[in-house]
Amino acid sequence: MQSDNPTAAILLIGDEILSGRTRDLNAHHLAGILNGIGIDLREIRVVADDHGAIVAALSALDKAIGGAWDMVFTSGGIGPTHDDITADAVADAYGTSIEINPEARRMMEERWSRLGTEITPSRLRMARIPVGATLIENAESAAPGFSIGGAHVMAGVPSVFRSMVEALIPRLNPGRPPVSLTIRVDRPESEIAEGLRAVAADFPDLSLGSYPFREDGGFGTNLVLRGLDEARVEQAAAALRNRLSL
Amino acid sequence: MQSDNPTAAILLIGDEILSGRTRDLNAHHLAGILNGIGIDLREIRVVADDHGAIVAALSALDKAIGGAWDMVFTSGGIGPTHDDITADAVADAYGTSIEINPEARRMMEERWSRLGTEITPSRLRMARIPVGATLIENAESAAPGFSIGGAHVMAGVPSVFRSMVEALIPRLNPGRPPVSLTIRVDRPESEIAEGLRAVAADFPDLSLGSYPFREDGGFGTNLVLRGLDEARVEQAAAALRNRLSL
Repeated sequence: MQSDNPTAAILLIGDEILSGRTRDLNAHHLAGILNGIGIDLREIRVVADDHGAIVAALSALDKAIGGAWDMVFTSGGIGPTHDDITADAVADAYGTSIEINPEARRMMEERWSRLGTEITPSRLRMARIPVGATLIENAESAAPGFSIGGAHVMAGVPSVFRSMVEALIPRLNPGRPPVSLTIRVDRPESEIAEGLRAVAADFPDLSLGSYPFREDGGFGTNLVLRGLDEARVEQAAAALRNRLSL
Repeated sequence: MQSDNPTAAILLIGDEILSGRTRDLNAHHLAGILNGIGIDLREIRVVADDHGAIVAALSALDKAIGGAWDMVFTSGGIGPTHDDITADAVADAYGTSIEINPEARRMMEERWSRLGTEITPSRLRMARIPVGATLIENAESAAPGFSIGGAHVMAGVPSVFRSMVEALIPRLNPGRPPVSLTIRVDRPESEIAEGLRAVAADFPDLSLGSYPFREDGGFGTNLVLRGLDEARVEQAAAALRNRLSL
């Protein structure tokens, strides 16, 4: 699909996904939102809770430090525990230091005093933020995420991740949302491949995806047309229906 | 976690995951299986149905062509349609050509003649396999996957992917499966962080993960201990229970 939309990557930091213990929810949630606001998600990576792996992935993904895409959204590895090494890795990747952020500390202390929660050194670790970052509010549990360079660093717990995404989205520079149209065909992919290839060649500005499925023992195919111009998508859909005698 | 186990990556090829249309099933399925046979999954990537993106990802991931890990399992982008460009990209990445594979053709024709399915040029495209690859059988729909270098190239349709994984697993060189033990603590992560950090420092050969959750309005934490030696995992669990007065 031809587009001048901003590009993005998602970086999930989490041994629990790599071990098969947890099935990703956060990348799927954010992918749908980005698609809806015209930010072109081009890559997702999952790496271990490992300093070097996080630094390398950020460097490869964020244009601000020599990587490939305009923005990177990270999930996981921030919080109070020993294996929450993301903040330190981010500071390294962006060549800055890390210290207790007074505003983050204030947000967390305000919540803790309201809830009668004791302030401990472990809890205060969650206010350690790379110098120069701006905070991403967290209505769910107070400890904020943060943005630095082209990266937006968020928590892995799904409810907290969603709360941070909600705070962050209005601040992003959106693009033009794609129009998408799905045509269901109750024939196997191989029967419609030639027609599809011909229409795809006539509409190089669109993306035409073909997603085979199996239902009640038979094979079918969902054809998904995507593009930035609604009229073009409708034209391609008409051409496809014509070609496939639908 | 210290380990000499073979390492692996999963590469998902799929616009439909990046657009938020589909939530991944295949990486999650395979991650659990790899963990169970001692193959250390170190990275997952999702890239678009794009020739350059696929070649770049394979080159970065497969040690056989200069990448980082011992094996790469790919899912998606093989099949009869215009956007199924994986096989060509794989041939390029491994410096080989692509042609109709006689054995693949035979497997498919055998099934088609049994089912009375017509043999068309579109269908025969599914027998295009990089020269030098070995086939991965597909009990579900006949069109095979294939292995080349350290890569195992499989379909994206979950039922077909699973069938290929089943055929492939007995051929892999397994490692020593990790032992894992989960301790549920009904306290927020920040309250147990110090104890956890101390135990982690005493057991550098293990991986200690801390996974906060929210249930019935309260916060809790699952502590996951993983290692190759069961006795060490039990020792660390005892030390943790002691530290946290469980």
